[in-house]
Amino acid sequence: MTDVEPGDSNAHSAEAAEGRRAHAVDADGKARNLRRLRRIEGQVRGLHKMVEEERYCADVLTQIASVHEALRAVGRELVRNHLTHCASPAFGAGGEPAEAMYDELIDMVYKHIR
Amino acid sequence: MTDVEPGDSNAHSAEAAEGRRAHAVDADGKARNLRRLRRIEGQVRGLHKMVEEERYCADVLTQIASVHEALRAVGRELVRNHLTHCASPAFGAGGEPAEAMYDELIDMVYKHIR
Amino acid sequence: MTDVEPGDSNAHSAEAAEGRRAHAVDADGKARNLRRLRRIEGQVRGLHKMVEEERYCADVLTQIASVHEALRAVGRELVRNHLTHCASPAFGAGGEPAEAMYDELIDMVYKHIR
Amino acid sequence: MTDVEPGDSNAHSAEAAEGRRAHAVDADGKARNLRRLRRIEGQVRGLHKMVEEERYCADVLTQIASVHEALRAVGRELVRNHLTHCASPAFGAGGEPAEAMYDELIDMVYKHIR
Repeated sequence: MTDVEPGDSNAHSAEAAEGRRAHAVDADGKARNLRRLRRIEGQVRGLHKMVEEERYCADVLTQIASVHEALRAVGRELVRNHLTHCASPAFGAGGEPAEAMYDELIDMVYKHIR
Repeated sequence: MTDVEPGDSNAHSAEAAEGRRAHAVDADGKARNLRRLRRIEGQVRGLHKMVEEERYCADVLTQIASVHEALRAVGRELVRNHLTHCASPAFGAGGEPAEAMYDELIDMVYKHIR
Repeated sequence: MTDVEPGDSNAHSAEAAEGRRAHAVDADGKARNLRRLRRIEGQVRGLHKMVEEERYCADVLTQIASVHEALRAVGRELVRNHLTHCASPAFGAGGEPAEAMYDELIDMVYKHIR
Repeated sequence: MTDVEPGDSNAHSAEAAEGRRAHAVDADGKARNLRRLRRIEGQVRGLHKMVEEERYCADVLTQIASVHEALRAVGRELVRNHLTHCASPAFGAGGEPAEAMYDELIDMVYKHIR
């Protein structure tokens, strides 16, 4: 299943250069994820400082766990958007595209989400 | 169980200001972790760019999974250092400090490592 | 979102007694899951024997990890069935039922699948 | 690192036949784990019944998550016993056996515990 507009050659060259695009993206969810990722970047810099300062292992691990949780929130928002804007039309189409989307979703969930 | 030198009042005021410190830190492992965290910071900025550009959800999730793995490598290094320099002396002491360290280690593992 | 046939009072009393039912279940997937669960029951009895015989901790943990993996395979099959037979019609309906199903799916994934 | 008594040929033939043994096992923890595993066996039979009765996917997944948690409690008890009775003497010995035990513990944690 590809997510670029079919027959759109600009999209195809963009895909070659920059990778596949989402079918559509909810603006609020996107803004929330950009804010989350800025915060995560700050958390990772904080971790660098903690390791630099030789902070106590258990305290660093607690902070690492909180970055894991923050990344999960980003993924959760992405999966919601994916269900709404990409999986839903494929399911509606039925047959081959629906089957391909079931497989993609399950792979996504079981390979990438722990 | 605290990891600062007992009776070291500088350590205690430093602790108050900046948090608990590791007993001792292996220089090579520390350097590896600082490099890993710089790379992770770059990965998180890459994620921000992917979300900005509305990249395909599955591709962003794959990248998120790779940040999770990179963070696990940091944690793994920290736990190794902790076992060598902090848990090991506590185990050697036996009795109360050893018991407290068993509990701390197990909590660390089961709460923070998934 | 409820999954029993609307207006089916037998289903409702069955639900009260035995819990909610799946909308429809694929026979092959069900058979695979019943076989998996029989095998998992045997693995758990094997774990009981290993603990009884005071087997080496690392070996028991390896076996526990394999039960976790086997349970994930059961979950994976269930989620596939759920997408096909329950989520798909809700998505097709759009509006409120579709929104409720997105939320249910994401909760399912992020709460129960690690 | 082997965990059987050195020079104990019965232990060695037992090991060949039945696998490695724990150095020592705390009786209370063992009893708790045997009870947990009996309960887990019952939970797995309950899952078989739920799948047989075509119960709602989200409800089965909730039950699967509770088996995962119960298995984690078994692992936690095993790791505690391992730290007390096996890792602790290896750490005390220092040098090669201590290093080998650090590696074993970290592998155990990062490979098997999610």
